[in-house]
Amino acid sequence: MEKIRRNERMSAMMKILADAPNRIFTLSYFCELFGAAKSTMSEDIDILRDVVKQFGLGELETVTGAAGGVRYRTVASKADAQAYIAELCQQLSGTSRVLPGGFLYSSDILSAPEAVRRMGEIIATEYYAAAPDFVLTMETKGIPVAMCTANALGVPLVIARRSSKVYEGSAVNINYVSGSTGHIETMSLSRRAVKEGQRTLIVDDFLKAGGTAKGMVELMHEFNIEVVGMAFVMETASPEKKRITDYKSLMVLDISDDDQPVATLKPADWLMA
Amino acid sequence: MEKIRRNERMSAMMKILADAPNRIFTLSYFCELFGAAKSTMSEDIDILRDVVKQFGLGELETVTGAAGGVRYRTVASKADAQAYIAELCQQLSGTSRVLPGGFLYSSDILSAPEAVRRMGEIIATEYYAAAPDFVLTMETKGIPVAMCTANALGVPLVIARRSSKVYEGSAVNINYVSGSTGHIETMSLSRRAVKEGQRTLIVDDFLKAGGTAKGMVELMHEFNIEVVGMAFVMETASPEKKRITDYKSLMVLDISDDDQPVATLKPADWLMA
Repeated sequence: MEKIRRNERMSAMMKILADAPNRIFTLSYFCELFGAAKSTMSEDIDILRDVVKQFGLGELETVTGAAGGVRYRTVASKADAQAYIAELCQQLSGTSRVLPGGFLYSSDILSAPEAVRRMGEIIATEYYAAAPDFVLTMETKGIPVAMCTANALGVPLVIARRSSKVYEGSAVNINYVSGSTGHIETMSLSRRAVKEGQRTLIVDDFLKAGGTAKGMVELMHEFNIEVVGMAFVMETASPEKKRITDYKSLMVLDISDDDQPVATLKPADWLMA
Repeated sequence: MEKIRRNERMSAMMKILADAPNRIFTLSYFCELFGAAKSTMSEDIDILRDVVKQFGLGELETVTGAAGGVRYRTVASKADAQAYIAELCQQLSGTSRVLPGGFLYSSDILSAPEAVRRMGEIIATEYYAAAPDFVLTMETKGIPVAMCTANALGVPLVIARRSSKVYEGSAVNINYVSGSTGHIETMSLSRRAVKEGQRTLIVDDFLKAGGTAKGMVELMHEFNIEVVGMAFVMETASPEKKRITDYKSLMVLDISDDDQPVATLKPADWLMA
């Protein structure tokens, strides 16, 4: 085999690490892949750590111990997160996206690959330390962001459904009260999807009164799963009091209640702090 | 600014390109980012192209002309695609995933970040040439794979719903006959989601008789949108004749019809050819 140069090793390593965020790769894995000595690979990793930091591309961490190695995390800096969310807020604000009934059209943003990747990375940054075993979302609109958050955290995504499906096998169903409409809704999760004792991060697109979010928390209690965090793309300014606490949203939405309703979106306070 | 070395430029460039597959970055963009001359950047790109190829990490292409530059594509080699899909088939085959009624439990695979990324890359590889403007899927289970396909193609994802929603604005609804059950179902798409004259790639998780897929094709006709391809994660061996033609699936599923039903999954013929 022709000798592989440092620039070649580092570029390939960057891609391999970034394709599997939060997964620990052993030094031996890369030594074997590139036919390089451990000392050489250590040097490569030291340089790569600085590159990733310098260009705001996340974080490279060396993990010591028996299961040690190197892992990549999509960590977004506060400044980058602020700038990106402020840009999204501007894009979503105004009159053109307000729908009859005072709703905001946001489906395009919620399934635009770059937008959901960036939002997923910002959410993941806040919850690496909480070490969830999986990300839970409720179908449908939040799935892409939840997927990207799960990818960044290196854990599976689990999707709760509005009703049980034959192809999900036996399921646990709960009823909950929708916070906005007061109607009784159903939420269903396959028994095979999760295991008792796991930890979950709840991610969804929208938080209004918090009925659905509260339903997800209750569903997790049925499975003896600990909710280690809740994150939402958008929350409404009103009602101010939600049915859940200890959550983070990226944007706060306010739609004026007049003949020409205007949507105003602002980055959430914690993000700007 | 301290001078940035080749290994640093190349690693950062790899990450930036891979984060936005199929997007053309101008040479000037990288020259400015790294404070390097065009000739230097060209050399970097030449080396990076070989690295990406050598380690099976996709493809780097130089695009000439006024809108020229460099772009990264997630192109999966036939051998890698075959090996990965064969591995998935093995994982899904057997008795443990067969549910009452002869269904296969696959929700976990369909929302596992690495699996959907790999499957999305394999599908995208087949449809780069068709140059779709967006990927269309029908909620719910196919969303993660469709999302990853859209990401690899560098286009938006559009999600058709089972009923129209207030937060999607005015929508076009169609009725279609489910191929498996013979029931009349509804499919809905927001008018804002797409534009007349666009081209779409349909991606979904499951193809049985093809009723839903045919519904999606008809929905696209309502919007004067051309369907340039259709791809599915799994198709059933029976019925052999589907309601649609010109599609690709990754795996073919057969569940034996006896007391101890066994699922057998095989990579699709086109993939093994």
